Amino acid sequence: MSGNTPIGVFDSGVGGLTVAREIMRQMPKEQIIYFGDTARVPYGSKSKETIITFSRQIAKFLLTRNVKAIVVACNTASALALETIKEELTIPVIGVVKPGAITAAKATKSGRIGIIGTESTINSGVYTQYLDKMCPHVQVFAKACPLFVPLVEEGLLYDSVTVEIAERYLNELQGYDVDTLVLGCTHYPLIRHTIQKVVGPDVTLVNPAFETAKTLKRVLREKEIECSEQMPNHKFFVSDGAEKFKSFANTILSCDVEETKDINIEQY
Amino acid sequence: MSGNTPIGVFDSGVGGLTVAREIMRQMPKEQIIYFGDTARVPYGSKSKETIITFSRQIAKFLLTRNVKAIVVACNTASALALETIKEELTIPVIGVVKPGAITAAKATKSGRIGIIGTESTINSGVYTQYLDKMCPHVQVFAKACPLFVPLVEEGLLYDSVTVEIAERYLNELQGYDVDTLVLGCTHYPLIRHTIQKVVGPDVTLVNPAFETAKTLKRVLREKEIECSEQMPNHKFFVSDGAEKFKSFANTILSCDVEETKDINIEQY
Repeated sequence: MSGNTPIGVFDSGVGGLTVAREIMRQMPKEQIIYFGDTARVPYGSKSKETIITFSRQIAKFLLTRNVKAIVVACNTASALALETIKEELTIPVIGVVKPGAITAAKATKSGRIGIIGTESTINSGVYTQYLDKMCPHVQVFAKACPLFVPLVEEGLLYDSVTVEIAERYLNELQGYDVDTLVLGCTHYPLIRHTIQKVVGPDVTLVNPAFETAKTLKRVLREKEIECSEQMPNHKFFVSDGAEKFKSFANTILSCDVEETKDINIEQY
Repeated sequence: MSGNTPIGVFDSGVGGLTVAREIMRQMPKEQIIYFGDTARVPYGSKSKETIITFSRQIAKFLLTRNVKAIVVACNTASALALETIKEELTIPVIGVVKPGAITAAKATKSGRIGIIGTESTINSGVYTQYLDKMCPHVQVFAKACPLFVPLVEEGLLYDSVTVEIAERYLNELQGYDVDTLVLGCTHYPLIRHTIQKVVGPDVTLVNPAFETAKTLKRVLREKEIECSEQMPNHKFFVSDGAEKFKSFANTILSCDVEETKDINIEQY
């Protein structure tokens, strides 16, 4: 396979743009085909079967765009659907869970790691299981923070209400004396300043978006499918509300998002 | 058509259960076939085209259960899809917007009415347009309250954070001196005590769930399709997470929700 084909990135909505942003920063020549499942967002409270069905449809769509690798830029889908999608495809498929977990395991000194995420990600136990298997000496404390996504989407990134809710969610983890905290939802990096303020400067925050882009870069190099020349502009597809998505995307990406297309994902 | 067939009620998720509850109270003999679109919830921020597609699929499903009338127990779908669904079906289709709007127009003394709801409902302008047409002497002030649904779903019904957020959302409406406030989202009756506390005792809250059940009762009587005998137990269907739905339903309905079935709504 030639390296001069795009990378597929998908998420339940806009959150995965924090991962796309890291890929653009670390691999500026590559082209991204982004899909946000805005008609069916959020994934956080849906069942494993549903998330697998949705992820399969999206992978099929991305393959029609000739992608050379797929990044599952959504913690819920990485937790619930990654293994299935990997088995069904021949191209590399990279999730956000493993890179974040490995970095946390390397960063912790006390061996006590906190994980925060949506209900589905936390209930799936995916971070805990992965870390238990990989580094059995590490203790993992997980906490679902269901209000963080709506607070981010309401734009309350530095607000007193967000601080108050963060204190309630994170107090429990602080009680466990964690020294490393994984931001296990792609929306959370957008409130990392509030989270850092609440947990204090001694806790290391791990941003899986950054680590995932690093992993992708390594995989492309190993498989020798990095692009050899500057690729065309990134392309953005959603299952609903292309205009609204475009305006949000333009606030968090440094490239110009000129066009966003609505597609009927249920047809795939 | 015989009256001894069920009534279809649908919503994007659990919110419409507040409407189902009122129907059960006011028409205890009737049987309800409830559908909650939990795989694609929330509808509040999705486009008109998407909401029409979803509503059409659900109406098709309900018709396979032989329903004699359909209640669109969702403000967003009532705002965006009701007219289309009505045109396409021969049975009565009742939304929650009109009954709530009429009641508010009758209740107001100052002629100044507030409407709160999801972004989609408010942006659709459906309440405002309807009231402008029907009672041009009434002034309508609308405000989207996107955090109310996640706060309700997090169980923070009487919490200080909910009070704080309610104050921010409702201060603007109080500035307009409204004397009547329509709870334009089916989740909001569950925080009506907090809302009443914030707006004060002189503002009349209108609960469209109650008014919709009254309208349904009148329509069934006019068309002579009320049931003549005690019907079988209500039935509940969802597009995802049947067990989770069942436990929530059991907290807000007085009947026993014994069984809830997952169906694949995209097939309809």
